[in-house]
Amino acid sequence: MKAFMDENFLLQTETARRLYHGCAAALPIYDYHCHLNPREIAEDRVFSDMAELWLGGDHYKWRLLRANGVPEEEITGNAPGFVKFLRFAQVLPQAAGNPLYHWSHLELQRYFGYHGVLNGDTAEEVWKLCQEKLPSLSVRKLIVESNVKVICTTDDPADDLRYHRAIREDASFPVRVLPAWRPDQAVNIEKPAFPSYVQKLAAAAGREIHTLSDLLQALETRLSFFDEQGCRVSDHGLDAMPAVRATEREAAAAFEKALRGEALSQAERDGYKGFLLRFFGREYAVRGWVMQIHYGALRNASSRGFDALGPDTGFDCIRGADCSAALAAFFDDLDREGRLPRTILYSLNPNDNGMLDALAGCFQEAGVRGKVQHGAAWWFNDTKQGMEAQLTGLASSSLLGTFVGMLTDSRSFLSYARHEYFRRILCNLLGSWAEQGELPDDTAMLESIVRGVCCENAVSYFGF
Amino acid sequence: MKAFMDENFLLQTETARRLYHGCAAALPIYDYHCHLNPREIAEDRVFSDMAELWLGGDHYKWRLLRANGVPEEEITGNAPGFVKFLRFAQVLPQAAGNPLYHWSHLELQRYFGYHGVLNGDTAEEVWKLCQEKLPSLSVRKLIVESNVKVICTTDDPADDLRYHRAIREDASFPVRVLPAWRPDQAVNIEKPAFPSYVQKLAAAAGREIHTLSDLLQALETRLSFFDEQGCRVSDHGLDAMPAVRATEREAAAAFEKALRGEALSQAERDGYKGFLLRFFGREYAVRGWVMQIHYGALRNASSRGFDALGPDTGFDCIRGADCSAALAAFFDDLDREGRLPRTILYSLNPNDNGMLDALAGCFQEAGVRGKVQHGAAWWFNDTKQGMEAQLTGLASSSLLGTFVGMLTDSRSFLSYARHEYFRRILCNLLGSWAEQGELPDDTAMLESIVRGVCCENAVSYFGF
Amino acid sequence: MKAFMDENFLLQTETARRLYHGCAAALPIYDYHCHLNPREIAEDRVFSDMAELWLGGDHYKWRLLRANGVPEEEITGNAPGFVKFLRFAQVLPQAAGNPLYHWSHLELQRYFGYHGVLNGDTAEEVWKLCQEKLPSLSVRKLIVESNVKVICTTDDPADDLRYHRAIREDASFPVRVLPAWRPDQAVNIEKPAFPSYVQKLAAAAGREIHTLSDLLQALETRLSFFDEQGCRVSDHGLDAMPAVRATEREAAAAFEKALRGEALSQAERDGYKGFLLRFFGREYAVRGWVMQIHYGALRNASSRGFDALGPDTGFDCIRGADCSAALAAFFDDLDREGRLPRTILYSLNPNDNGMLDALAGCFQEAGVRGKVQHGAAWWFNDTKQGMEAQLTGLASSSLLGTFVGMLTDSRSFLSYARHEYFRRILCNLLGSWAEQGELPDDTAMLESIVRGVCCENAVSYFGF
Repeated sequence: MKAFMDENFLLQTETARRLYHGCAAALPIYDYHCHLNPREIAEDRVFSDMAELWLGGDHYKWRLLRANGVPEEEITGNAPGFVKFLRFAQVLPQAAGNPLYHWSHLELQRYFGYHGVLNGDTAEEVWKLCQEKLPSLSVRKLIVESNVKVICTTDDPADDLRYHRAIREDASFPVRVLPAWRPDQAVNIEKPAFPSYVQKLAAAAGREIHTLSDLLQALETRLSFFDEQGCRVSDHGLDAMPAVRATEREAAAAFEKALRGEALSQAERDGYKGFLLRFFGREYAVRGWVMQIHYGALRNASSRGFDALGPDTGFDCIRGADCSAALAAFFDDLDREGRLPRTILYSLNPNDNGMLDALAGCFQEAGVRGKVQHGAAWWFNDTKQGMEAQLTGLASSSLLGTFVGMLTDSRSFLSYARHEYFRRILCNLLGSWAEQGELPDDTAMLESIVRGVCCENAVSYFGF
Repeated sequence: MKAFMDENFLLQTETARRLYHGCAAALPIYDYHCHLNPREIAEDRVFSDMAELWLGGDHYKWRLLRANGVPEEEITGNAPGFVKFLRFAQVLPQAAGNPLYHWSHLELQRYFGYHGVLNGDTAEEVWKLCQEKLPSLSVRKLIVESNVKVICTTDDPADDLRYHRAIREDASFPVRVLPAWRPDQAVNIEKPAFPSYVQKLAAAAGREIHTLSDLLQALETRLSFFDEQGCRVSDHGLDAMPAVRATEREAAAAFEKALRGEALSQAERDGYKGFLLRFFGREYAVRGWVMQIHYGALRNASSRGFDALGPDTGFDCIRGADCSAALAAFFDDLDREGRLPRTILYSLNPNDNGMLDALAGCFQEAGVRGKVQHGAAWWFNDTKQGMEAQLTGLASSSLLGTFVGMLTDSRSFLSYARHEYFRRILCNLLGSWAEQGELPDDTAMLESIVRGVCCENAVSYFGF
Repeated sequence: MKAFMDENFLLQTETARRLYHGCAAALPIYDYHCHLNPREIAEDRVFSDMAELWLGGDHYKWRLLRANGVPEEEITGNAPGFVKFLRFAQVLPQAAGNPLYHWSHLELQRYFGYHGVLNGDTAEEVWKLCQEKLPSLSVRKLIVESNVKVICTTDDPADDLRYHRAIREDASFPVRVLPAWRPDQAVNIEKPAFPSYVQKLAAAAGREIHTLSDLLQALETRLSFFDEQGCRVSDHGLDAMPAVRATEREAAAAFEKALRGEALSQAERDGYKGFLLRFFGREYAVRGWVMQIHYGALRNASSRGFDALGPDTGFDCIRGADCSAALAAFFDDLDREGRLPRTILYSLNPNDNGMLDALAGCFQEAGVRGKVQHGAAWWFNDTKQGMEAQLTGLASSSLLGTFVGMLTDSRSFLSYARHEYFRRILCNLLGSWAEQGELPDDTAMLESIVRGVCCENAVSYFGF
């Protein structure tokens, strides 16, 4: 019987423990994709209570509470902070096998020094302990203590990036906080807010937008601005990779229809989207940026939930549709032009793992390690089993040693514990292979993979 | 080397053994979904030989025999009972890794006291032993000895439920045998027998059916009748969740066409089905029933097999089509109206596991634990690996502690051993997590999950 | 800590070691599907260097090199053999978890007696060692030393099979090298080269081809020729199983259009393909051949790669489309006619595993063991995890004891090590079940499965 989540948590062999404690644990974090709020970093926010820091904005935890029948009042509503915390503590003992069980305890251990078990009985004691420590745990302190070197936030092309600039100009904070380009609003032509977004973009770019050509020029202006501000990476959140190849004329016609508020057919929408994604791909290639593609989400499945709380509040699920042919066509189009950027692929559908690994292997480039690669287990797959599946699958059909590794993808400043979780799982996997004689007992070789996957590959891949 | 299927079968750690023997083993069974014949319970049937009890109606075993090239005569034909039994015994040694290997031996152990290995050499000895015990193993004795408290059978809306009433009125039998509502014949508008089924339903409801409105009223009459007879749960067997939303007028037009024997388009069929499923969903919500949706089967794949033996004889397989968007739309429609019943989702396609877990998380309700949930591994997935995958997946993206657990889904009175199989796998999973330090070594917490999943959750979820 | 890839590689229990060393290791190999070049066997080729033998034509290794950014010049280009070998050796340490890591070391151990670790540091030493041994390792020696009894190559219907005849007539070589029928070029009506292929086929059959009827007669002539030359097995490489059922008239019209160089609709193409596949199925059934269906590949995804290097050079990936209904319809059509041949199904999409296992169970035949079955893990799935998944899945829903087992599917004469890899995994699986008490500790029973899966089932299934 191993002790509960002690220093050797998830490390089942001697080699795993050696790799983790001797190598992985001390490596810095390059968090190349997250949803942290740069303003809170700039202003070095301090949270008033644990409900705000721990439960505010965390739709993972909200879903767990809802699954136990907790009323919304005590999840996202006006109930007192301690009540929300208590509800979560009461739910946890039923959450065996859920990553939140581990994330929560890792965060309590690392940031609050609490090594017990959180449940309904201990909730009050833990709340008090956390409340005592909270004032000393400002956002910047959390980041620095987590050994983070680079943070890439997620930003709209129309964003003025003022907080990124403020952070950069503040010499007292040693961590680089870079913007990342997420132009979903320029892609999602079917949204009612699309025309007004185009106006917002026009204002940001300082030019009127009436045609597709105007739009592309405005986007180029903003791409250059982001590039100047240190952006190295883009991100696209797609329902599915559009399967339609449209000409510029077709895409322009669809765009103008949308600006006029006219309804578009599925083919028109997908044609526009496919055109724009190819435009972006070329731009990223030219600028040396990395492209991230996240697809396979079915967002806002509960319209009741969406109407009440808006997007990203725990009412999303997995879309099952197959995108293999559309993805292959997209990559091939850019590759044929010599304009395929380095790309990381994420699907919310775990069934796509094997397909993505195989696809990535078709689009590599001399001089680049792992040019197209399958990204870390995302969202609903960001679990112990999901990570093991992603790592094992990537290793099986590609080069594990070139993987750029983990990201938090989180809205919470405590989520750096997910890097620890990932590293333990990685070291455990390598350790078990070595102990079983499936790999040589060669510390230098194993540590080279660990260092690469935990940080070195990201540094070179993103050009940090 | 552990002994073959001894008392610690599937229990790999000390904690697993403690959880199983100290808690799970003695818990009663609430078998909320099965295909047992209520007449056989009412009449307390005694089987004349093991072929009848063990091989009759069991298409799992038939498929195994066919896969070994056994002629149909010796499977479902007129060969003597012992020959059928012998053939099965001869096939078993090649069935390593098949759940039938375990189910068969568990059943021989628990009901016949045979702890050896069944194969061609031991077949005669085992047959004799079983034949001796058979006269004392009536259907009711098997049920009572299995510690079963509630059985939900599977019944057509036109059924008069006379055997359920007879069982209920017999004070000597302590087990509740409740009907479950399975209206597939009212949904499957494309079947040649649909018009005649509608007449049968009209007769049962005591009213003529000429229009959709008539049909819905007849169904309401039968729903109320089932409700009076103690029904708490419905079940739908769908090829796929229909993706079409039809208006009542469109559904009515399709229904009348079908009654006239005219051919329907796919859109008309799916529109009618989607309409009817939404009607049922609302009715279940109002009555507080649970809705079960089983989909993803490709039935009667071999028309030769179907023509020879009819449905449910081992010629079904898995349909791969994606239903994520149609399911989400179905739930959202009912949820928006405040008429979404508690629902258990089962897909025959194991690739749907992650999707179903994520979908369920979007449709929860204050005051209900696990309102929509992903059901136990079904049919071809009802295996050790399939159960582990379902449990691990559900735990990863939801609350394991709210799961309503196992059902037999069986036509056999010996299948209660599948609950034991499930419980051992559950305890082994929890035990391995605790022993690895991934859960606290907290017996009360672990046993609370075990009790919940094995019986308590079902009692409260179904309102037994 | 087990030693690196020693004699007990992959054998984690005593029972596994006993099964492997005491039974599986010495069994002969019946390699019923590979891509070896019969000419090289006829001429008993000797390779001039390790790059030629080991890296030439091996797109698995090429993909690994590309994933590390190695320039094409040093992969498939004109760089010296040692440079290519060195690059591969340098990539290997990053390939933890990739089957190439194991295959490569197994091949170095078995054929070159090298038991160390290949990496950048040891590359030169290993190269020298291999170069010394190469002259004594002719193609035939490699085959005989690998204990191979039968090889089925992959041959076009228009092939004259002269090398097969030459090998057969050479009494000094004890291994049977049989042709296998792969008529993809006659099926792929959409290819620009289709009309010229039809002319080639006409020449081989000695008759003009102007109509579908001519084509079928020419194919029958060639089927008979292949049959006379000892062919026992066919193979089809399909993107997807066509879902269209065409009449002979429709298929004939499509064929004549294609011969005239006119463009075909998707329905015309699929109708022709479905018709031809049914024709082939019947012919195989009559001749007692085995049909193999490989589907789910998305070939030549990178048109740049394809233009530079042609097909089968590492630019293929996985197609995700669902084929369940089309496969079921195909089997049912043949089965209803009593003309369904023994069939092995392979999908490149690992998500199809469960579906294929379940489908196979619907189409069995009295007197044949495992008539339709799910084949060994293919290509991107031919990994430790992929094999375990295929074996576990097949065992769960069918009879493991009837499985025809492993094939190399390789272009390399060193790939017989993949049979060893498979056998170790099989023995480890059975051993772990027995040691856990999930199977009886019955050596005769376990060895019977091992012998069946490793060679005896293939002998009887293919009629070798």
